[in-house]
Parts: sequence; C-alpha cells; structure tokens
Amino acid sequence: MNPIQVGLLGIGTVGSGTFEVLRRNQEEIRRRAGRGIQIVAVSRRDTAAAQRIVGDAATVHADPFEIVRNPAIDIVVELIGGTTLARELVLEAIQRGKHVVTANKALLAVHGSEIFAAARAQGVIVAFEAAVAGGIPIIKALREGLSANRIEWVAGIINGTTNFILSEMRSKGLDFGVVLQEAQRLGYAEADPTFDIEGVDAAHKATIMSAIAFGVPVQFDKAHVEGITALQAVDIRYAEQLGYRIKLLGITKRRGHGIELRVHPTLIPATRLIANVEGAMNAVVVHGDAVGSTLYYGKGAGSEPTASAVIADLVDVTRLHTADPEQRVPHLAFQPGELHDTPVLPISEVVTAFYLRLVVADKAGVLARITGILAEHDISIDAVLQRESAEGEKQTDLIILTHNTVEGRMSAALAQMQALPTVLAPIVKIRKEELN
Amino acid sequence: MNPIQVGLLGIGTVGSGTFEVLRRNQEEIRRRAGRGIQIVAVSRRDTAAAQRIVGDAATVHADPFEIVRNPAIDIVVELIGGTTLARELVLEAIQRGKHVVTANKALLAVHGSEIFAAARAQGVIVAFEAAVAGGIPIIKALREGLSANRIEWVAGIINGTTNFILSEMRSKGLDFGVVLQEAQRLGYAEADPTFDIEGVDAAHKATIMSAIAFGVPVQFDKAHVEGITALQAVDIRYAEQLGYRIKLLGITKRRGHGIELRVHPTLIPATRLIANVEGAMNAVVVHGDAVGSTLYYGKGAGSEPTASAVIADLVDVTRLHTADPEQRVPHLAFQPGELHDTPVLPISEVVTAFYLRLVVADKAGVLARITGILAEHDISIDAVLQRESAEGEKQTDLIILTHNTVEGRMSAALAQMQALPTVLAPIVKIRKEELN
Repeated sequence: MNPIQVGLLGIGTVGSGTFEVLRRNQEEIRRRAGRGIQIVAVSRRDTAAAQRIVGDAATVHADPFEIVRNPAIDIVVELIGGTTLARELVLEAIQRGKHVVTANKALLAVHGSEIFAAARAQGVIVAFEAAVAGGIPIIKALREGLSANRIEWVAGIINGTTNFILSEMRSKGLDFGVVLQEAQRLGYAEADPTFDIEGVDAAHKATIMSAIAFGVPVQFDKAHVEGITALQAVDIRYAEQLGYRIKLLGITKRRGHGIELRVHPTLIPATRLIANVEGAMNAVVVHGDAVGSTLYYGKGAGSEPTASAVIADLVDVTRLHTADPEQRVPHLAFQPGELHDTPVLPISEVVTAFYLRLVVADKAGVLARITGILAEHDISIDAVLQRESAEGEKQTDLIILTHNTVEGRMSAALAQMQALPTVLAPIVKIRKEELN
Repeated sequence: MNPIQVGLLGIGTVGSGTFEVLRRNQEEIRRRAGRGIQIVAVSRRDTAAAQRIVGDAATVHADPFEIVRNPAIDIVVELIGGTTLARELVLEAIQRGKHVVTANKALLAVHGSEIFAAARAQGVIVAFEAAVAGGIPIIKALREGLSANRIEWVAGIINGTTNFILSEMRSKGLDFGVVLQEAQRLGYAEADPTFDIEGVDAAHKATIMSAIAFGVPVQFDKAHVEGITALQAVDIRYAEQLGYRIKLLGITKRRGHGIELRVHPTLIPATRLIANVEGAMNAVVVHGDAVGSTLYYGKGAGSEPTASAVIADLVDVTRLHTADPEQRVPHLAFQPGELHDTPVLPISEVVTAFYLRLVVADKAGVLARITGILAEHDISIDAVLQRESAEGEKQTDLIILTHNTVEGRMSAALAQMQALPTVLAPIVKIRKEELN
C-alpha cells in the first residue's frame, strides 16, 4: 500500500521534530502501522527555512491553504498555533474530508465544540494527543485506558515553564522575578511568558482533560485561572516546613451538582509522587473509582517529545481512517449525543483546604481572634505555625492550614480577618489539595 | 443495539471486581463505548459462590467450556490463571471465533506466540491490558501511545508484593523473612509467595513488555530471573548512604546485537521518581528515542484496579470487533510478519553497573589488591565506601560501586576476589541502573 500522505501546516520546533522522527523511525513506524506515513507538503511563511528542513522530501508552501486544498493530502497536521488562522485551516481541512492532527490546545479549549461537531458531520478524525502534556499519552489514557472508570478528578503539572520556575524558587530560595529571568535565559520561558506564568496555557489543557474525563463540552471561559506571578519564596519555605510543596496544578473535579475547573498554585503533601516532579517535566494524576490514582509523567514540551504524540496520532488515524466512524474512539471520549451539559462551578463554590499566611501584630489575643473568625464560619483548622519573633520585633507571621471548606465561606472569613487592626498586611491564601 | 455478550471464566477477586464495576458504571461505559457490555455467563467450580456474586444477572456454570462453546457469547474473559486449562480454554474460544480478554501473564509469556498466531488466523482479538501492571494502561501506552518511538528500554516495578516488602525492609530496617511474614498477614503476599518473591511473576510481565517494545516474540524461557529472597537489610542501608534505593525491577533493553530481558534487585538513584514508588504500587518507565523517559504509576493488582484494565479491553473490543482486522492494533504492537527474531542475550553479555559488598580483613593492602583486580578486568570504579571498623575489630565492610561493565567480565573479577584470603565471606553483588 502506498504511504498515507500528510501535510504539515507550520514547520517550526514541533514540525521539524515531527519530520525528523518520522524520517528516522520510518521503518519502525511502518512495522507498527502496517503502512508508511509520509510528509509530502509543508507550509511556512519563511519558505527558505522550511526548505532547509525538508530538502527534496516534501513540497514547500508559503500559503498553508494550498496544503489544505490539495486533494492528494489525507491528513493535515496543524502546528501553526493561535485560534484564528488555525481555526480557519482546521475547519476547511475538515470540510474537505481530511483528518486533522493538532497540538493546538488553545484552539480546542476555545473552539473545540465547533471543530468536533464539524468533524463528526464529515466523518473525519480530529486527534490531539500533543495538545496536552506533550509526549505523555494522557489523552489516550483518559479516553481509552481508563474507560471502565467513573473519573473523579484529574490534577496535573501541565506547564513545564512554571514547574521549572517553582522548582528553582524552592531549591535556590529565590523570588519569582529572578528565576523568571533565568528561565528566559535558559530557554525554558518565552520572551513573552504571559500565557505560561498566568496559568492560561495550563487552563487550556485542563479544559480539554475536563471534557474528556467527564463527558462535557470544552468550557475554557468557565475555568478559574491563577498563575504564579504573585507567589513568594517565603510561602514556599513555610509550606516545606509543614511538609508540602507548591505546584501550579490544573485541576478538574466531579462534584454532585457540577464540575470544578481551575488552575492555581497548590500545596500538595511532599510525600506524593507528583510533588517530586521537578524542572520542566509534566505529570498528571487521574483518579478513577475503580483504578484509584494513576500517574503519567514525562516531557510536556519540546520538539521530539511533542512530535512523539503527533506521530502516535498519525499512526492511529492511519489505522482507523477507513473504518466505520462508530468504531473510532469519540473525540471527547463519550459518544456524540452522550455529552452532559454539567455546569462548571464558580470558584466561590469550589471546595479545597487552604494555606493562609498573615502578618500580625505580636500581642496577646491575636491568634484567638483569628481562629475565632474561622470558627464562626465553620472552617476547621488542620495546623498552625507561628514564627518566633525576633527580639524587639513587633510583628510575626502566622501560618494556618485549614481543612476543606467552600471557597465562598473562606472569602467571607478572610474579609473579616483582613479588616482587623492587628492584621498588618494583605493575607496570603493558597489552596491545598491532598490528592489521595 | 443490544449489549455485547461477555462470558467470564473464573469469578474470584478480579472477576467479581469486573462484574461489580461493569454493573456500577454501566451507564458511563455505555456512553463511552456506544454499546452496552453485559456479563451474561460466569464459571466457577464453586457455583454457589458464583451465584452469590452475580445473582440473577448471569448464568452460572461449573464447566468453563460451556461458556466457551456458547454461540451467544461474543467475548470470553479468561481469569482462571495458570497455563494448562487456561490455554485450552483460550485456544478453543479463538477457534470458535470469539474475542478473548485475559489477565493471565503466565499464559501469554509462555504460550503467547501460539495464542496470537491462532487469533490472527481466526481474525479475533486477544486483549491483555490487565496482564501487566494491573490498572495502569501500560500496554496501551507502549503499543499505541509511544508508537512514534524506537523504544530503547523499559524498566518497571511490576510486582506489588516485592515492592511492599522492599519498602518495609527499608523504612523499618527489617530483614526479608520478618517482612514477608508481615506481608502475608496483611494479605500483600500469598501463602505460597514463590512466584512473587522469586521474580517469576515480574519476569512474565517483563517478557510481555519486551515483545511489545521491540517487536520480538515472547521469550520467557530466555529471561534472567532473580528474586529478593537473598537481599539483606544491610545492603539496603549502604545503598541509601550512597544515594540509592533497591527495587526489584523488570528490565528489557535494546542492544546492538540482541535484547536484554531480566528481573533482579537493582540499585537506582534515590532522586528518580520510580525510586520513590512505595508499598504495593507499580510503576513502569519507558524510554523512547523521541519522547525520552515517561513513567506510568498506579495500582498493579487488586480486584477493581485489575477490573479497570479488563473492562478497558472490553470497550476496545466492543468498538473494534466488527472492524477489518488490519484496522486493529496488532497484538504485539508490530504487524504480524514484521516481528524480528532478535535474540535475548545471556546474562553474561548484559551491561550494568554494580554494587559490591565485601567483608574483608582490616589490614593494609586489601583495598589495593581488590581495586587492582577490577582494574585488570577493565572495570572502573564509581565510588568506594569502607565502614570504619570498631576498636579491636579485625574485619570491615567494603562497598564498591562500579561503572557499567559486561557481566561476564565482572563474574571473572568476582571469582578472583572471592579467592583472596582477605575476603572473608561471600561477596554480595547487586546490579545498578541509572535509568536516565
């Protein structure tokens, strides 16, 4: 059988990795897929740069629509990024009956419902293993490997840049700004790191995992998103003293009347495997009712790790593209028509434990007043740590770990505490999860 | 569409978990699979016990062949274990055109080639996610998720009993025999724990992963197998001092002229994520040329975790059983006819680093003589630790970590060292892997 014909839209870091791995491992991949997979066309505005990568092996186009409109192409791989041109290209490829493989989490988190509906109508596959956690086959695990389970929650370190920064802040005791500059110098953070450090990238990925885990539509606009820019080294130190690490987690959880979908810095017990994931690595914990907690770890970004996921999708599509669509795994794990319209809960209804750090006047009755306010709001305390104040110092740090509570209740308590004259600075609040 | 009809051969721990999870999550599973999955017949010698589990939901048979020969059954789930009756049942089910799901690693490691050939001839699927690492979808990850990669090696904690014992030996400083009794009392080890503690169970699983990773036939008879019965608490302590943990690993590695396939206690750096997998949990690290190292962690045994894998296979078969066999993932990841007959290397040709513990006479020249023997065999030393001997003591412990070497060379060096009059006890040798 002749090789399946693939067109790459965009050949930068991931595209050139995809080209190289397909070339290097073509024999191994053909032995698995039962058919060759060949990149025959690539697009890039800088055609000379593209030409240097592909040589004579593929045609080079400045206009990606030339690939999308080429009837010889069976599968289009979208690696352009962004949500405007990429959306147009993907929708047109689908309309023309082409299967699509994409690494574009923003596109799917925002326009996923439209894209999956179009794909269903045309009977084509949209595959997106590379969109979440790079080379880790987490989409396949969630969608197929754990299909027996009622998934209870998913929590992941799904942004390598922020995990690198947090690892450095902890191991070197440095503040966020200093480490960010180092990360940029080393290439772990982009020149404009906003999407990473503000949690947006993680939220795109959490949104996709949420849809697959619970059988709900993608709802990025409902996600609660906090980054790590406000995080201070002192809180990482206090957390450590209490036996916790702080990680930026993307979390989605099933609750009785809705779904939690949120990204924020989170204290997790230092003994958990995921707490020990350091540097730019990614890891996702999935908790299912039958299997319990499972964890998936690996490189979440980079040229060849992401290419690994893109090509796994190409192999899947190569196997299944002639099959009856009902034999395929549904895009969002659940059969179309079987998605539930479960609402995403507002952050005020989310349930977590909390780490609080208060700068308080070092005098009698302060702790009693603060714990009294928590008690009035029915928030119970798990641990308290008060820094010994230095000779002559008039203030100290008071750290409180609470048990689980509804966030709205905590906000009300915090407003009351913040108004106390003995509370001398804005209270720091970080959510805490046991993940067991 | 009417539900797909499943017959369970054997309804003990895993069978009753499968029955219960399918019942509890039937709605969730139907939403994913697009069709119901129903256990309509079960077999067990003690039919009354089976009846108590399934009630009126399924017919109960003392003779499993009644299920295999029932034309209404689409999929047979083999949970009987062993390699005699199970082989007959599986082969007859295949001959009758039924798909098979099995959790039986021994059966596949020993008779896999015969069974997969029969399945291919009949165009049926034999699925076996539950055979390796229980609820962790490692077969799917290896076979599909990482299909872009040339897999370089796989190393896993794939026996929960031995990992529980090693964790307890380390954390409590106890010897093997004591912890084994505790494990039996707690139900982590069976009354006859031979298959677990001698490494046979892990070798079955490593054999299956080896075949899938490298596209070779299952070759259990070529595996090198060592268990943990000879392991002493003192070596766990010395390893810890040097920054290592000792785990029973199943390892398979691609080498230029063959494949390594071995199970043995192994020192691994304490900073590796897999070194921190404690208790009865399992974890597998897969190293691919494109993706680098990925890790998969979860419960490797137990009723519902194993059922999770059995049912994931049932969902896959439900989706694909009407598809053209060429659209299915090949049993051993590579297309039939594309398996290579790469030999499994004898242990003398395996390359690892080593931990050595020698009880030596505490006098001048001993270290020089021993390191001299290593140098003569071209084995280079990574680290040396000599215990300070107590006042008046005439012997001491000498710990040596070597760099990588061929095992045959190490055996020759060890024979020479053992013959020295200053070496006072049998030398302890444990292999060491960096896993990076």
